[in-house]
Amino acid sequence: MLPILFLVALLFFPSSQAADFCVAKLKGAGNPSGYACRNPAIVTVDDFVFKGLGVAGNTTNIISAAVTPAFVQQFPGVNGLGLSTARLDLAPGGVIPMHTHPAASEILFVVTGKITAGFISSSANMVYVKTLNKGDVMIFPQGLLHFQINAGGTAAVAVVSFNSPEPGLQITDFALFGNSLPSKLVEKTTFLDDAQVKKLKGVLGGTG
Amino acid sequence: MLPILFLVALLFFPSSQAADFCVAKLKGAGNPSGYACRNPAIVTVDDFVFKGLGVAGNTTNIISAAVTPAFVQQFPGVNGLGLSTARLDLAPGGVIPMHTHPAASEILFVVTGKITAGFISSSANMVYVKTLNKGDVMIFPQGLLHFQINAGGTAAVAVVSFNSPEPGLQITDFALFGNSLPSKLVEKTTFLDDAQVKKLKGVLGGTG
Amino acid sequence: MLPILFLVALLFFPSSQAADFCVAKLKGAGNPSGYACRNPAIVTVDDFVFKGLGVAGNTTNIISAAVTPAFVQQFPGVNGLGLSTARLDLAPGGVIPMHTHPAASEILFVVTGKITAGFISSSANMVYVKTLNKGDVMIFPQGLLHFQINAGGTAAVAVVSFNSPEPGLQITDFALFGNSLPSKLVEKTTFLDDAQVKKLKGVLGGTG
Amino acid sequence: MLPILFLVALLFFPSSQAADFCVAKLKGAGNPSGYACRNPAIVTVDDFVFKGLGVAGNTTNIISAAVTPAFVQQFPGVNGLGLSTARLDLAPGGVIPMHTHPAASEILFVVTGKITAGFISSSANMVYVKTLNKGDVMIFPQGLLHFQINAGGTAAVAVVSFNSPEPGLQITDFALFGNSLPSKLVEKTTFLDDAQVKKLKGVLGGTG
Amino acid sequence: MLPILFLVALLFFPSSQAADFCVAKLKGAGNPSGYACRNPAIVTVDDFVFKGLGVAGNTTNIISAAVTPAFVQQFPGVNGLGLSTARLDLAPGGVIPMHTHPAASEILFVVTGKITAGFISSSANMVYVKTLNKGDVMIFPQGLLHFQINAGGTAAVAVVSFNSPEPGLQITDFALFGNSLPSKLVEKTTFLDDAQVKKLKGVLGGTG
Amino acid sequence: MLPILFLVALLFFPSSQAADFCVAKLKGAGNPSGYACRNPAIVTVDDFVFKGLGVAGNTTNIISAAVTPAFVQQFPGVNGLGLSTARLDLAPGGVIPMHTHPAASEILFVVTGKITAGFISSSANMVYVKTLNKGDVMIFPQGLLHFQINAGGTAAVAVVSFNSPEPGLQITDFALFGNSLPSKLVEKTTFLDDAQVKKLKGVLGGTG
Repeated sequence: MLPILFLVALLFFPSSQAADFCVAKLKGAGNPSGYACRNPAIVTVDDFVFKGLGVAGNTTNIISAAVTPAFVQQFPGVNGLGLSTARLDLAPGGVIPMHTHPAASEILFVVTGKITAGFISSSANMVYVKTLNKGDVMIFPQGLLHFQINAGGTAAVAVVSFNSPEPGLQITDFALFGNSLPSKLVEKTTFLDDAQVKKLKGVLGGTG
Repeated sequence: MLPILFLVALLFFPSSQAADFCVAKLKGAGNPSGYACRNPAIVTVDDFVFKGLGVAGNTTNIISAAVTPAFVQQFPGVNGLGLSTARLDLAPGGVIPMHTHPAASEILFVVTGKITAGFISSSANMVYVKTLNKGDVMIFPQGLLHFQINAGGTAAVAVVSFNSPEPGLQITDFALFGNSLPSKLVEKTTFLDDAQVKKLKGVLGGTG
Repeated sequence: MLPILFLVALLFFPSSQAADFCVAKLKGAGNPSGYACRNPAIVTVDDFVFKGLGVAGNTTNIISAAVTPAFVQQFPGVNGLGLSTARLDLAPGGVIPMHTHPAASEILFVVTGKITAGFISSSANMVYVKTLNKGDVMIFPQGLLHFQINAGGTAAVAVVSFNSPEPGLQITDFALFGNSLPSKLVEKTTFLDDAQVKKLKGVLGGTG
Repeated sequence: MLPILFLVALLFFPSSQAADFCVAKLKGAGNPSGYACRNPAIVTVDDFVFKGLGVAGNTTNIISAAVTPAFVQQFPGVNGLGLSTARLDLAPGGVIPMHTHPAASEILFVVTGKITAGFISSSANMVYVKTLNKGDVMIFPQGLLHFQINAGGTAAVAVVSFNSPEPGLQITDFALFGNSLPSKLVEKTTFLDDAQVKKLKGVLGGTG
Repeated sequence: MLPILFLVALLFFPSSQAADFCVAKLKGAGNPSGYACRNPAIVTVDDFVFKGLGVAGNTTNIISAAVTPAFVQQFPGVNGLGLSTARLDLAPGGVIPMHTHPAASEILFVVTGKITAGFISSSANMVYVKTLNKGDVMIFPQGLLHFQINAGGTAAVAVVSFNSPEPGLQITDFALFGNSLPSKLVEKTTFLDDAQVKKLKGVLGGTG
Repeated sequence: MLPILFLVALLFFPSSQAADFCVAKLKGAGNPSGYACRNPAIVTVDDFVFKGLGVAGNTTNIISAAVTPAFVQQFPGVNGLGLSTARLDLAPGGVIPMHTHPAASEILFVVTGKITAGFISSSANMVYVKTLNKGDVMIFPQGLLHFQINAGGTAAVAVVSFNSPEPGLQITDFALFGNSLPSKLVEKTTFLDDAQVKKLKGVLGGTG
């Protein structure tokens, strides 16, 4: 008994990095592969569990919807493991506006309700739209514009997963109208009318 | 109008491969990156939607549980996109036995019910077990032994996602007792007793 | 002399795949890693050279600009090598409209003229804009919205490279207004006014 | 002479990271890509050489075998280079028990003796077993259960390599019986009898 | 307006790592994935712009040529983004000697002049040489020996890109003759004559 | 018993691609990820075993050495698994000349004899040389020039592994002198004397 344990001790010696996982130390500087690993000696099962998706997001906003992310910043256990997840809540009439995830594909599972979802391909500019029911799954290829809309009269919930701990989220409207990008540049690069740009900048808090 | 379309035509010309996605032609031979792409001209939104997870799996079996996969073989749209998913149904008393996914990490979301889940690390042989409630999420690092058990008195459902279209699934019991691996080799490599091995080979249809 | 050649013959025997490169057979079905390799015996240096970027693109269009791609579909020699390139021509007043490359980062080198370029981050919705002169280089991180505008009174030329043979190109305006995505869905997911959407659908040939 | 050296000095300037290698600083926190790089100025050839595999492992234990790893924790020079290695010593009757490497494939070369090795596929639950002689090579795909047994009357030695500096090693028996995983959970998830589980927990030092 | 901003605040909270980019802190220790990220709060557009390629390199040296790199050490904005670039200046008669990039493929665009470029395959030891004119593009597969020569009577300039922020550069002559590798070892491993080796060691500052 | 098998049948159904492995069909065209998969139904354990390294290579040649590869072309079982191996035989005085592997790092284990091995870094042009004894291991980073020399009076054998099924092998002398690369180009790009180039072209069968 002792000999076999001794043998294994060669492999199972204390280390600052566990080969199996790398729970993120979010305070330190990240690097291109993610965050530094928390000392495995102080890691517990709670680092691999995220409880924040059990509660509905607050949908009393202009999109009547909420995204509750469990990305590495919220869920440090996914660091380095190539996965993250999020919950979508869509009140009746709710919409997750046109957006992309720059660093991941997305797979969506409808938990409750009815959702119309779609994406637009880049290679052929094709539109792929479908109304999904409870239990249906849809895949959104990496980096493409896509959206989700409540297609029923009751609240809809979906759980989405990404093949990256940091998929990113770029909502087109926020990118164009919710920051300091000058209206003139928005108009020049999108052909939108000045009045339209200024109206949405007003709604989304953009300047310039 | 025409000139701008002409410009874009340089990029959006017909091709046998769409840069954005690669819906699998399952009939042909695969290769290390997955399957050949179906002609994008005949791809429709239905290739990106999978409806098989809306129905409960049949749990009237000895594990009182069912795994319904949406891997590339069932859901060709995920080919090359680095993601797949599955539905777990656990009747009261149900269990997804100890297993690994050789090619992917897994993230689990509890849709209904209560599930005790756990994994065992390789580096330090530590056990990470937790009872999860509806809406809780747990991450299982790539290649490690893990399991799920219904921890409540009612049916439990979970949706799991993997960062590979072909995560693989190796249930330890099937690998040891459900094939032609000679009992003598099983015993030699696991230290299990002969009677134990033969008993489980009987249950799981193994020979030798 | 013969012996040493004999030794090497073990390694340099005829094969349908060269370890070094894999010039694309564009006619066949692609797969997630790219296209099948042309027989190396018929590959010549011309497969590794692309002459299409020596000529200015036609900028007599509504954007007064042109993108001339040397992606795998135009330049089969880059298949599997993780790189591609393109030429940008911007007449005075020209603009490459807001767009993303779903599968690659981009590095831009100004060959002649003056170009204002910028991108918008997803994590913090920050704007990074700069006017570049001849010889300046700018990097655009993968999947983020970005644009280029002629910032001088004379024609500008840039050469851009991507870390993928198929970076993709999704011009936001084309994705929203240049296809069959119903106006109602565009409006619902972008908060643009109906008149604005219909006006741009008219310009870009969209329907619905 | 000076001019050419001056030119090269642009590239060969002092840096805290060598592009070519990244010898691990094991003391610091790791990250998903491995360990931080030791200052290249103090790296010597001895960082790229490991002498621990020249000595036979101690096989006077219950498995009559020993694994001597040269993973990144023992051999910091492999950090970031995608390879590691180990020596297997199998006394007559010796066995490397059923195990997986969660993060790597393995290639085995028989240095001396005769070894019966095998693995079990996940996709089809097939058994692949072969008795190997001196000089034979066998490949074990990533993450699959496999084992090695001395098949001769004399000591056997093999050298194995992995396509990861941290392949991990999960011996099924240690994972099930050598830690605090409660017997009840082991039985529930493996269908092993209580007596069998308790017997092996006793041998391998497990509790619960 | 406030509600929608509040929703997004969940995603856009302050972090030490931006998902989108990771501008290098060159002073700290690197790791296998690159350098630690500079705090995104202090990153500006100037981190994504490199101005050093607008000036011709000094070609008054024995190769009548200059390489001006914009690798991660010179251009920290490319850290983690999978791309870098460089400028080649070739005076009449100039040559970039036979070399490899251990970690990247290269794509070359001729800005001005005429360049003869070539590479040698490893699998079949084939030679691929071509004289390129202004605007021509050539791809050099990863790790293969290649070279560039001014093929005209006037200065030539090329911009090259690599699919790595740290492609590396190993000039065969420097590697063989520009360091302390003993002449005897050079001769033994290259079959070059002693006089030849000593002559080039003299030119390139080598010892031993 | 039947129910559990039925459950698993969903996952273990016949497929033209096994998720676990992809034994190469060498006759067909390869692609960037390797070769198409042989039908798993006809794969046997012999596809995962290579017997060609048990026999000494023929060292009666001018280098008094032999490389016996077990790359994917010789050993189809490694296709897609990220590993390959080779045997080095060095008679007294034997040398594996200066070379690179464009697509892989290498790890070397000395089986018998004494070997002097070394590599040259690109970033700092440093030389790392060591004489290795039986059982010693050395790592050679990807793409760097390296060599092995018999350092004893008896035959030496080493087994080397690579983290690619197709590491490539570019022997500098063969690349420079063993093909049709014109002497003038060799001289221009290496500064070698004309007589030296022509002498080695003569030995190695080069032309031009």
